[in-house]
Amino acid sequence: MRTDLFEADHELFARTVRGFVERHVAPKLAQWDADRLIDRETWRAAGEQGLLGLAVPEEFGGPGETDYRFRVAIQTEIARVGASALQSGFSTNDDIALNYLLRHANPEQKRRWLPGFVTGETIGAIAMTEPGAGSDLRAIQTTAVRAGDTWILNGAKTFITSGILADLVIVFAVTDREAGSHGYSLLVVEDGMPGFSRGRKLDKVGLHAQDTAELFFDNVAVPAANLLGEPGGGFGYLMRSLPLERLGIAIAAQVSAEAVLEWTLDYVKQRKAFGKRIGEFQGLGFTLADLQTSVEVSRAYIDRCVREYNAGTLTAVDAAKAKLWATELQGKVIDAGVQLHGGYGYMMEYPVAKAFVDARIQRIYGGTNEIMREIIHRDLLRA
Amino acid sequence: MRTDLFEADHELFARTVRGFVERHVAPKLAQWDADRLIDRETWRAAGEQGLLGLAVPEEFGGPGETDYRFRVAIQTEIARVGASALQSGFSTNDDIALNYLLRHANPEQKRRWLPGFVTGETIGAIAMTEPGAGSDLRAIQTTAVRAGDTWILNGAKTFITSGILADLVIVFAVTDREAGSHGYSLLVVEDGMPGFSRGRKLDKVGLHAQDTAELFFDNVAVPAANLLGEPGGGFGYLMRSLPLERLGIAIAAQVSAEAVLEWTLDYVKQRKAFGKRIGEFQGLGFTLADLQTSVEVSRAYIDRCVREYNAGTLTAVDAAKAKLWATELQGKVIDAGVQLHGGYGYMMEYPVAKAFVDARIQRIYGGTNEIMREIIHRDLLRA
Amino acid sequence: MRTDLFEADHELFARTVRGFVERHVAPKLAQWDADRLIDRETWRAAGEQGLLGLAVPEEFGGPGETDYRFRVAIQTEIARVGASALQSGFSTNDDIALNYLLRHANPEQKRRWLPGFVTGETIGAIAMTEPGAGSDLRAIQTTAVRAGDTWILNGAKTFITSGILADLVIVFAVTDREAGSHGYSLLVVEDGMPGFSRGRKLDKVGLHAQDTAELFFDNVAVPAANLLGEPGGGFGYLMRSLPLERLGIAIAAQVSAEAVLEWTLDYVKQRKAFGKRIGEFQGLGFTLADLQTSVEVSRAYIDRCVREYNAGTLTAVDAAKAKLWATELQGKVIDAGVQLHGGYGYMMEYPVAKAFVDARIQRIYGGTNEIMREIIHRDLLRA
Amino acid sequence: MRTDLFEADHELFARTVRGFVERHVAPKLAQWDADRLIDRETWRAAGEQGLLGLAVPEEFGGPGETDYRFRVAIQTEIARVGASALQSGFSTNDDIALNYLLRHANPEQKRRWLPGFVTGETIGAIAMTEPGAGSDLRAIQTTAVRAGDTWILNGAKTFITSGILADLVIVFAVTDREAGSHGYSLLVVEDGMPGFSRGRKLDKVGLHAQDTAELFFDNVAVPAANLLGEPGGGFGYLMRSLPLERLGIAIAAQVSAEAVLEWTLDYVKQRKAFGKRIGEFQGLGFTLADLQTSVEVSRAYIDRCVREYNAGTLTAVDAAKAKLWATELQGKVIDAGVQLHGGYGYMMEYPVAKAFVDARIQRIYGGTNEIMREIIHRDLLRA
Repeated sequence: MRTDLFEADHELFARTVRGFVERHVAPKLAQWDADRLIDRETWRAAGEQGLLGLAVPEEFGGPGETDYRFRVAIQTEIARVGASALQSGFSTNDDIALNYLLRHANPEQKRRWLPGFVTGETIGAIAMTEPGAGSDLRAIQTTAVRAGDTWILNGAKTFITSGILADLVIVFAVTDREAGSHGYSLLVVEDGMPGFSRGRKLDKVGLHAQDTAELFFDNVAVPAANLLGEPGGGFGYLMRSLPLERLGIAIAAQVSAEAVLEWTLDYVKQRKAFGKRIGEFQGLGFTLADLQTSVEVSRAYIDRCVREYNAGTLTAVDAAKAKLWATELQGKVIDAGVQLHGGYGYMMEYPVAKAFVDARIQRIYGGTNEIMREIIHRDLLRA
Repeated sequence: MRTDLFEADHELFARTVRGFVERHVAPKLAQWDADRLIDRETWRAAGEQGLLGLAVPEEFGGPGETDYRFRVAIQTEIARVGASALQSGFSTNDDIALNYLLRHANPEQKRRWLPGFVTGETIGAIAMTEPGAGSDLRAIQTTAVRAGDTWILNGAKTFITSGILADLVIVFAVTDREAGSHGYSLLVVEDGMPGFSRGRKLDKVGLHAQDTAELFFDNVAVPAANLLGEPGGGFGYLMRSLPLERLGIAIAAQVSAEAVLEWTLDYVKQRKAFGKRIGEFQGLGFTLADLQTSVEVSRAYIDRCVREYNAGTLTAVDAAKAKLWATELQGKVIDAGVQLHGGYGYMMEYPVAKAFVDARIQRIYGGTNEIMREIIHRDLLRA
Repeated sequence: MRTDLFEADHELFARTVRGFVERHVAPKLAQWDADRLIDRETWRAAGEQGLLGLAVPEEFGGPGETDYRFRVAIQTEIARVGASALQSGFSTNDDIALNYLLRHANPEQKRRWLPGFVTGETIGAIAMTEPGAGSDLRAIQTTAVRAGDTWILNGAKTFITSGILADLVIVFAVTDREAGSHGYSLLVVEDGMPGFSRGRKLDKVGLHAQDTAELFFDNVAVPAANLLGEPGGGFGYLMRSLPLERLGIAIAAQVSAEAVLEWTLDYVKQRKAFGKRIGEFQGLGFTLADLQTSVEVSRAYIDRCVREYNAGTLTAVDAAKAKLWATELQGKVIDAGVQLHGGYGYMMEYPVAKAFVDARIQRIYGGTNEIMREIIHRDLLRA
Repeated sequence: MRTDLFEADHELFARTVRGFVERHVAPKLAQWDADRLIDRETWRAAGEQGLLGLAVPEEFGGPGETDYRFRVAIQTEIARVGASALQSGFSTNDDIALNYLLRHANPEQKRRWLPGFVTGETIGAIAMTEPGAGSDLRAIQTTAVRAGDTWILNGAKTFITSGILADLVIVFAVTDREAGSHGYSLLVVEDGMPGFSRGRKLDKVGLHAQDTAELFFDNVAVPAANLLGEPGGGFGYLMRSLPLERLGIAIAAQVSAEAVLEWTLDYVKQRKAFGKRIGEFQGLGFTLADLQTSVEVSRAYIDRCVREYNAGTLTAVDAAKAKLWATELQGKVIDAGVQLHGGYGYMMEYPVAKAFVDARIQRIYGGTNEIMREIIHRDLLRA
């Protein structure tokens, strides 16, 4: 059963995205992987095409499109060519960094920062995780201390998506050690601020074109005008950002699973062994049937989540279910896809191989799936 | 995330059903199991309450309600008390036998047979499976030979739901051995016809109150007026009945899984061990989180299938996916539910134990899940 | 790969057991299920054949055979005919009750009790679980208070294997609420003691011929001479009994899985559909291959455990692994076996159906598999 | 439960290997990955240490050690540092190429070739797979036509382990298209033979230091003296080599799973979150318990296979079970190991990340696990 999420205008937009992907993404994938970086040109081209900053209001240069199905269209078309690193960068911008700015930036900040998110001039990042604090965010050690018109920021962050390219980094820092959940704030650090430096690009299992990095803050004097929202509000803001963050990952997972299954079906229908197309062997066929069914079932839930998000009713817990389910699905589908490709599934020139190494992080970032389970568990006890 | 399938009138209807279930079903479950039969009184009471023959047009005494969500409401409320045998009987009547009559009976036949499906006076059965032919229906041996105004029916059927009580049995028989797929017809055998006899009630793993039986046809002279549709049309009719038949099983599976998970959550929230509620242990909690997520995800797909069915667009293959997925889910949820009940999960007085033995057939009947996989497999090769 | 556990004398013994099973067990299975009880005659016949009390020393009337492989031979042959209830009774006697007596009874007690375990005159039970204390044994409420030459025992136990027939019940009771782990003792309650009564036979999912029951102790004056071991030693004794108790369940699970797989292979090799033996379909064949492999792999571990047990080196943690693994395997193999039998797998006349309902308790009793996981988990943290 | 496979001399040998690994392997891993090649120096050092060509008889310069447990010792110590590419090269030499030579080379050939397998001067490869023929070896297109004292070899092979470095390649070629299974022969192609060329190093998901490559044979005139065994005997020789080939992969999988689990346990015991060591969380603990149990259970079977191999009784089917089981286990353990490492599991500097990408081929090469299932399936039908 095919998804019924899109209406005519989403289909139309998807076609536009597909054109962009064919021209600007597919031909550059190998180069990006070799460079371990996506060129800024691509970001600007995407901006010109209207693929970035969808939710930015018109007054700040954007289309003000809050129907999340357009973002789904973008994710879908990027997944079709397996451009996971680009997806990851775009999603960090639009689903995470921008989401914080739209919700918590004041008008002056919006004027300064939002237009770049639409044009592709500004690449955003969000810096939460630290070497000693992953899922347990309360344990972070990065601090910001008020000093006149600035906050003096000190600390180190790691696993930061777009860490090398980012022009604007939203940093999660302790501003009051005594205030519990109310002791964390969000500060926007901009490229070039003295004391802000970037570590090496991390050598990862996959997502090679993603410039994931460590960031260092050594007495960075962040102007008070770069505080996002209220002092002490950081933890609460973070909580409110969870539904979209998780939904974004879930969708990336779902559309990736769909793409990989399609590649795999194409492969088993043309590859022959023992006198027939290998897809005809029932032993493989039962696996394919299970995969196809699981992908369609999952899609129905994800589509439902998108509709709830559009309606403003998607809870953080339901989004956790989506993230957990879809990334587990993605893992299973890709692993089976590799297997069904036989030896070719292990060759990096096959997109399924790239998907295998790229996707492994999906069950880990945005809160590990174990954290998702614990969130759902606690919710069940409350109910 | 809760299902959004129902509108106000379905909720209202569900409340009526719940009342019926509380009065007429819950108190009799143990007795039915002991009797290995559901009393006819219950059928008539259900008829009075308007729970049977929903799709029967008004001219034949029914409400003409073709919105399948009302059937979902019935299934849901029956599942809440674990009355699987009743569910199975009702579903055989409304989703299968009645469905054949509505599609293929002529006006005269409809006048004769449909009213009883509304009042609960008529219990229907469908007789396809034979000792030597389960999933492979073309291999059946039961034959019907035209002789004047009658068809002389000979053969034996097995695993027939409502086999003992059935007043009207739709029999799948070979009428022309040479005609391939066009050599099968459907004949309606009625209680009391000479030569029609019932074997013993089969001793099953569960569904004890379900009067599953063998049926024997020894030179039964079935009036030609009891032929359903065209001679030789049987196989085609059967194919067309598959979406609803599979959807009916899928829904029963889904709502059963939901009910069992609810009982299990209730149990782990009150049962204590090692100084806390056992549901608080994270080891169990992760399992609960996975179960809850899987149940909600599956629900989204099943709901989508119901909407497609209402719209007339549910394919047999998508219904096969629903049957496969939901019954596998049901099996997993119930197995885990038993486990989480500890020793009590093995005691028949706990509904989860009854669900365990009742549900095992769901992955087998209506086409085994292996047949579902093969159907989906073949469809993938075609696509 | 076949097990290499047995030597010639075990094979010979197994053949004797097989004769006993053919004569005394197979023909009575249906009757036992109908009676919900195994007749005492069978116990005595087993005693005469030398199948009971193997480890009882010669001075107390037994063969003094401590090579556990002879017990494996018995389990194997009983599993071949699916006589799980008998297996459960015999195992409770020989692996659990007798094991306590051999380890902790004094010479006078041994003289009184051991001979009956050899002849089959004495059926033993072990009473630990209470309605409010399953896995969490420290939470039991049954108490025994010293009063002169007796212990006054009060409390209730549940899920007691052989509860109706048992002549001798080893009761786990609190004797000193302040003494922590040293506050529990084992008392032997004998049939007929005033105040000792048995509740109803529990209505279970399976193991119908097993007389599992509740036991009540109302001011039972247990002679001090019936205290097993030291006062306060109960918890420690219980710990020491765990390896054999768990191993016994693991072996029952393993040999049951082997038998069920054999029945299933026989079935799929003779049953035909779509023009061939169903076992030839690759979709089923892959499942069969996985099952066969898993059964053989598991067997290698279980065999190793038996050898370690014989050598006195099997730890409680390794036995927990065996119990966890083999019972999970058994559950999977039987569930698949039912599925591969199609509709017949749901008919109680097929042994696979009986195995399905019988085996479900294996993952629960003797410590739920969740408790096993926690035991292994804690051991890993220690290591 | 620890393996009991080794005796004192194997332990001693393992210690020697460990020393070699610490000096010659661990420090070079990163370099090898960067170079996409293992230096020949390492091979020679291994030869000097007595780690290569164990089974080569003394008359040809080897130790003549046919107890396979010494090979297990090597595999184990290499796995401890995650040097999968080296393992793969060594195993191709000792378990596959050498095995063919020992079985089928004539004395003259043995004199020429075997000494180099002991000293590490000769790196061997086996060339079976072709772009159009993976598991279906009968479909190969490479041909060798007899012409006087030579065989004229034409064709292309792919996925050849040690393809770049190999000094000696055993090529599987069609020598008589009409002769069915008797139409394949093995020819030894040596470095430098005119017409023999190597393609690019394949860009793989992992095993980066493994010089897997395509090989091309363009009218290579292979001396008749380089034919292995009889003309037309190739297919039969290949069949006979399967037990050891599969066993070698199974052991690599098993010892890798053990090593990864150990790294993971170390990690979860030191990493802290939410105020405790993450390994203490029961949600993770249950997973760890399952992993530990599965690794130990699998080990018992693998050890049994090694003993059978030593005794000359390991069948190709039982070896297929070992390959299937152990590589599936390895996949599960590593995937879980990555997950339990959180974000660090995705960083290539962590050995678990390297294991993740390296191990994915294990379920594919040496016959995909689907082929293993089909082999076991067919064996079950025969039995």
